[in-house]
Formats: sequence, structure tokens, C-alpha cells
Amino acid sequence: MKLYEQLADEMTEAVRRGVFAAGERIPSVRQASQQHGVSIKTVLHAYALLESRGVVESRPQSGYFVRDAPARAAMAAALDEPSLSRKPAAETPPVAATVDVSRLVLSTLRSIRAHDAVPLGSPYPDPSLFPWRRINQYANAIARRHASWNLIDDLPPGNPELIRQIARRYAENGVPVDPEEIIITLGATEAINLSLQAVAKPGDTVAVESPTYYAMLHAIERLGMRAIEVATHPAHGIDIEALAQVIATQKIAACMVMPNFQNPLGFQMPDARKRQLVELLAAHEIPAIENDVYQELYFGDARPSTLKNFDRKGLVLHCASFSKSLTASYRIGWAMPGRYRAQVEKLKFLNTLTTPSVPQVAVADYLKQGGYDRHLRHVRKVYRQQASIMTAMVQRFFPAGTRMSAPQGGYVLWVELPERVDSMRLYRAALARSITVGPGMMFSTRDDFRHFIRLNYSYPWTAQTEAALKTLGELVAQMA
Amino acid sequence: MKLYEQLADEMTEAVRRGVFAAGERIPSVRQASQQHGVSIKTVLHAYALLESRGVVESRPQSGYFVRDAPARAAMAAALDEPSLSRKPAAETPPVAATVDVSRLVLSTLRSIRAHDAVPLGSPYPDPSLFPWRRINQYANAIARRHASWNLIDDLPPGNPELIRQIARRYAENGVPVDPEEIIITLGATEAINLSLQAVAKPGDTVAVESPTYYAMLHAIERLGMRAIEVATHPAHGIDIEALAQVIATQKIAACMVMPNFQNPLGFQMPDARKRQLVELLAAHEIPAIENDVYQELYFGDARPSTLKNFDRKGLVLHCASFSKSLTASYRIGWAMPGRYRAQVEKLKFLNTLTTPSVPQVAVADYLKQGGYDRHLRHVRKVYRQQASIMTAMVQRFFPAGTRMSAPQGGYVLWVELPERVDSMRLYRAALARSITVGPGMMFSTRDDFRHFIRLNYSYPWTAQTEAALKTLGELVAQMA
Repeated sequence: MKLYEQLADEMTEAVRRGVFAAGERIPSVRQASQQHGVSIKTVLHAYALLESRGVVESRPQSGYFVRDAPARAAMAAALDEPSLSRKPAAETPPVAATVDVSRLVLSTLRSIRAHDAVPLGSPYPDPSLFPWRRINQYANAIARRHASWNLIDDLPPGNPELIRQIARRYAENGVPVDPEEIIITLGATEAINLSLQAVAKPGDTVAVESPTYYAMLHAIERLGMRAIEVATHPAHGIDIEALAQVIATQKIAACMVMPNFQNPLGFQMPDARKRQLVELLAAHEIPAIENDVYQELYFGDARPSTLKNFDRKGLVLHCASFSKSLTASYRIGWAMPGRYRAQVEKLKFLNTLTTPSVPQVAVADYLKQGGYDRHLRHVRKVYRQQASIMTAMVQRFFPAGTRMSAPQGGYVLWVELPERVDSMRLYRAALARSITVGPGMMFSTRDDFRHFIRLNYSYPWTAQTEAALKTLGELVAQMA
Repeated sequence: MKLYEQLADEMTEAVRRGVFAAGERIPSVRQASQQHGVSIKTVLHAYALLESRGVVESRPQSGYFVRDAPARAAMAAALDEPSLSRKPAAETPPVAATVDVSRLVLSTLRSIRAHDAVPLGSPYPDPSLFPWRRINQYANAIARRHASWNLIDDLPPGNPELIRQIARRYAENGVPVDPEEIIITLGATEAINLSLQAVAKPGDTVAVESPTYYAMLHAIERLGMRAIEVATHPAHGIDIEALAQVIATQKIAACMVMPNFQNPLGFQMPDARKRQLVELLAAHEIPAIENDVYQELYFGDARPSTLKNFDRKGLVLHCASFSKSLTASYRIGWAMPGRYRAQVEKLKFLNTLTTPSVPQVAVADYLKQGGYDRHLRHVRKVYRQQASIMTAMVQRFFPAGTRMSAPQGGYVLWVELPERVDSMRLYRAALARSITVGPGMMFSTRDDFRHFIRLNYSYPWTAQTEAALKTLGELVAQMA
């Protein structure tokens, strides 16, 4: 092995272990030359190789930076390409299924709470990263200012200033939006529920990703609809041809997707595919419900596009919230339901009457005063780093045959364990050791993800986390 | 007319005009004798007549007090007995109807907000009566104490201390309750919605009072069910024989009622009738959804019983909230769904995931620290007095042929106008003069209450209110 190849391998390993996190600058050519006692030319060679491997990218006048999705590239040497999603079901055409995952999800969440365990199984971001002190101060000031808040001030669509602020952020990020379209909801949960209720009725069939975020399955379960799971690529998102086949063979009332940093797979659908998806659905007049709660938690250079960017017919019902990026406990979400605006607004009124005013105004004040972007830059950096560390540690502690997603945003890692491992058994064994994981069965109506788990990397990396990962790896090895 | 009769009429008029409010002591026999220059014996005669008319009651060692429901008795001389409810529909048997009142309700509420008008049409209590300063202080302290609140702490059924406090209050008031049965919701709105969803499905028929509170109609509309309206007596509540007939002729999935201080009629169902209702429904295994949001706002001596008191089979789904009695903007409600507890808990999780923690804990702290009963005694007294004033003023300013309810709790008065008056026209004419009223059409799927309005008397009586009532009376007279 040549010297420059050796250096490239060393750097790859360092990235894999999280020494250099996604988006971070690696040592300059001069520094590396000194540190490793090699010539400038060797370093240049090594860095060119790293670049061709997709581990780093060069930026003019700035140097070399770890790429946003380094994990997969870095791991390619050591691990197989991840399957991570449902295998192409050539023999078994997809079948719409009734949905009943909420009991499993609720009992999992309860265990996490009851056991005060290492929260690898939590679906929520570490709340200590939130600027809760400032937001609470705004809320207190508002509560004092408006001695006697009247429920009538809270009526849908919601607080006008908050709506304006949300619209402004979209406009700044190139998403076309009419403030009149926005309806404030109780978290994205309610936005998704009402959007689905606006476009489909009990008994209807709804197409979802596979695996899919269980909030989507909950919305389907809540209304007594049926889910049909469509093969989903771990890097490109829902398989558009497979979806087209489903549409060709049965009546689909809606399609629910998470094009950005899907939970659990973490992918960002490329723009071309987003466009294809919107066009396919538009051609059949099928509404698309887009869950975009991680929109601010990208590891790349800019906020990704949304399905709304490609929507010509008002068929995209876009749902999001501040719960993942600013404050979870305030439960402020919103829907932009396109041509279904009137129905969603009416359903909001019927479902919960109003979203409380003080939290709405507190968030509006926070957005107006500035500081959100600075907060987000910090959170993104932390998550990007912690994604690398978590990836490196699973790699280090889990047995051969383990595969991982390469999250491009958000704060969860999807891990495929050796096929013999039953993640429900692993979940219970881990819980007995005060560790939680998210069992794969929560993400499907089928049995395809029994040997998968979801890990939350939003919490700071500690010796306890590392010990928990080691224990998990040992349990997996025993079960494999 | 004898002297004592003259005196009795004068006192009746004084009560009618709100000079002496419900529950207040009228002058002692000695005082009255001096004030009116008549003998003690004449006053005793006059007071005995007032008592027999139901205007006052004597309390041993205390004197004479205006009765809790003086209005109807006091008005009997001047007005016909109120019909106030749907006329017995001998020729037209009740028919289940699809429901679509929410647009009218929402647009009415919006107008109230937009016009900053005299809020006679508001469904909400005057928030300035709430102890918002103390509750906000608790909330601020909690927000500081729990820097980083985790959503996972909020999972259904809800905050354990709040649940304990709610259960304690029921127990103290003789309502049998297992804390395990209570599920915290986002206001009573969500409690009612989830309760109905737990027991019935789209297309089912649900029996309601006539007139009925529109939140009940909203729940039915939200789920695509059908409503069948059952004749309801302005003082005794839903007509149990009429309900039995409906049950005998068609399949009823649930019955939704408001046995205490029904909105808009204001009655308190007598215990015997509550028992009959529960037994009738139990005999047919029909679940009863009980909306008891005004439970604390009674004008009598003690909190009234609930349907839960008579429930042997777990068929009563009891719904309530703090929004009418303590704080509206926190949106804390609850359900006690009997045998349907598991379904309602699951639906809560699916519908809105959690009810925010800080408001839950703030209300729990408030209940624990004491002061709620003192607050409630004050509110009840104010509402009782203002009910009398509002009743007296409608009597004074509205034309002959106007009839009123005799609220026994709560803060709304139901007014039947001369039959030719269209309350939607009145609503618009009043709005143009910055006065709002609640048009009767909001309370039914039928056209029976077109000449009814609902008036809110929770706000302090001012010269502006009096002028508004006068204007309304003139408008009604013009339209009649």
C-alpha cells in the first residue's frame, strides 16, 4: 500500500470514528504534512483519494471538509451496502393492511419514561438543546401583558404574527407560500391527522413509505383507514416506480411521505425525485401529505426543498412543527394544506377548537427577535457530530452483518441487525439494563423490520452512552 | 288589590330588575315595615305570598332569600310559561340528520372577535374573573424548575398529580371515581370528541338534546355521524319518554347530554331524571356521553350529581374541563370514560399525542395550594346576580311575547323571541351596532330555533351592556 493510500485510510477511519464530523474541516495540507511527517505532495494525493471516495470535499479558498453524508462512504470499505429497507417484494405484491401499531409505540414510550434509561429509543430530541429560557421569558411576559386572555382570540387559523413569521421563513428558503394557507395546529401530529382526514375517509387505502414513521401509521389507524407500504430506498426515498404500480392496481386515497430526513431512514430525497413524486401523484389527482418536521435539521449547506416546491395543483398538504427544532413542550405545529385549506381549518376547529395563544405568541416573539438561525446552526453541528460518533460506535461494538443508515439530517440512526436478531427481544433485554432502543416493528404494519432498531443520537455523547452501545452490541452478538 | 299584595308585587319587580339577586337576602320584616310604612303583619303576609310564588324562600334564623331560579317565577305574572324548547313534534317524528353547523359557529365567533363588540354572543366566560395571576405564577415557577421538559413526561393519561386532584374533588362531591379512569385532554372539546369516537363510528346515529350545545353537534359532524334531536324540557332536561320512543324505533349508537346547566337552556336535571336516563340507556346498552363543563357553576347549595352517580355498567363517558371555572387559555380538560377507558386513552395518544405538561402541573399546583373553592364561591355569586340582572333587563327592554330560560347555573340565558323574528337577521343587525348575540340556529340541525338567541351574562353589568340590551330590544320589536 502506498503512503498516500495509508494516509487516506487513516483519515477515513478518523472520520468513521467521529474525530472529524460531517461538515467539519479536516487539517490543512500543510498541517497534515507536519503531523504525519509526509510530503505536501503525499497529502495532496491522499486528500484527492478521500475526495474521490466521497469522504471529503474541497472548497475553494477554504480547504477540505468532511462531507455531509460521510458515514456510508466511510463505511463502504468495512460494511456491505445497506439494504436497510424492505426487500423488493417481487413475489408478494403489496397488500393494504389495517393498522394497529399505537399500543406498541405507547408502551415503548412509557417504558422509556418509567425506566429513566439511556434514551437511545426516544423519538424526541434532547430538550436541553432548546432555547427554553428565552422562550419561557417571552411566554411569561405575554401572560403578564394579556391578563385575561380570551379563547376567542385563539380561533383557527391561529395567531397572525406567528403565521407571518412561519411564512417568512419559507419564503426565505425558496418555498412558495401564501400566509393565508397556514393553519396552526397542536404539533405536527394534529396537522397530519387533520390533513389525512381532509382527503380520505374510513376504509380508504393510503400509500406510505416502508419503513414509515409511525406517526403516519397512527393517523391511518385513528381514522380506520388501510395502509399500503411502498418499497423505500434508504438514500432516495419512496420507490416511485413501485408507487406507480400500486396506483395502477388499486385506488389510493392519499400518499404520506417524509421527503426530508425521513424517520427512521434519514434520507433526503433528491429534488428530481421529489418532482417525479409530485408529478406522478398529480397525474392521478392523489393528494400528498408531506411530513417535514425535520426541515431545519439538515446536515447539508441549505434547507432542502419540499414537495410544495413542485406542487402545481395544490395537492400537497405540507405539515411541520417547532417541536423538533425549537420547543417540544409548546406543541406548536402547522399545516399548509393547499386546495384542502378550508377543510383542514374546519377540522382544526372541530378537533381541538384552538391552539393555546400564549405559546403561539411566545414562539412568534422568539422568531421576530432573531436568534433562531444561530440556535439552528449550533444544533445542526451538534447533531452532525453526534451522528458520526453514533455511527462509529455502532460500527465498533456491533457484530458483523450490522448495517446502518447514513442520516443526512435529523437525529436518528436506523440499524439493521443480523437477520436472526429479534428487536423486541433486544428491546426487553436492553430495558432490563436501563437502555432503550426503538424496535423496528413500530415502523411498519408488516413483519419486515423485526431485526431493525432506531437509535436517537441527539443526546450528548457520554461514557454512559458508550457503555450502553457496548452492552447493546454484546446483546446483539449473543442473539445473532 | 290589598296592601300586602301591592308590596309583594313591588318586591317581585325589584327581584326581576336585579335589585335583589338570586341567593341574596331581601330586607328583614322589620326593615321592610319601616321602609314601606306598613305593619309587620302586612310584610309577613307579603313575604308569605312571595314565598308561595317561588320568588323567595325563608331560612330559619336567617330571613328571606331570593330563590336560585327566581326569574321564571317572577316573570310568571307578566309572561307566558316559556316554551323555549322544540314544540312536541306530534306529526313529525324525529329524523336523524347530517350535521354541518360548524361553519356558522366559527363565523359567529370570528365576528365577535373582529368587532370587539359587546360580547353577549360569546360562548366563553369573562376571563377577567379567573385567578390568572396565581396560575401564571405557578406556570412560571414550573417552567423555571423543569428547564428541559421532555415530551415523554406528558404521555397519556396525563400528569398524575393533576389526575389525583381532579379525583379528590369528585370524591369530595360524592361522585364515585377511580383516578385510574381519568384521562387528561385538550379541553372538554377533545374529551367529547374522543369519547364519541370510542363508542360510535361514521354513519351511526347519535341522540342529542334539542336545543343542544353545538360542541356536541361538532363532535358528530367531525366524525361523519348523524344526529337525532330529542325534545328537551327547559327545566327537566331531555324528555325520557321521547328518547325511549326514538330508541324503540331506530339504532342509537350513543346519547350526548348536558345534565347540569345545559347550554343553552341552563336547567339542572333532577336526580330522579338523571337516574331514569342512565337506566333507560343501560337497558339498551347505549353509552351516554355527559358534558359536565359547568359542574362548578351551580346557583344552588351544592354541586349537583352527575350521570356517573347512577352508572352501574360503566356506560357513562363523563367529560369536563377547567375552561369555564378556572382558566380557559390552558385548555385542560378530562374524560372519565368508564368501560371505554382504554379506547379513549389510545385515541388521545393518536389525536394529539400529549397535553402540554406545564399547564397541567400549574393547575395541579393551584388545586393543591387551595383557594379554588373561595374563587368558585365568588364566581357563583357573581353569575347568580348577573343572571338576575340580565333576566330583568330582557324583561324590561324586549317586546311582549319574549320568553326566557331560568338558568340554575352557568352563564348563559336562552331567549325565545316573537316567532316572526329571524335571529340571523337580528345577529347581523346587532353586529352592525357592535353587539353580538348567539343565533339559535347554532344549537340544532333543524330550523326550530330560528327565533331564539343565547345571551352571555358572565361579563360585569355596565351602562354599555344596558344600552346594548335596549338596542337589541328595539331591533327585536322592529322585526316582530
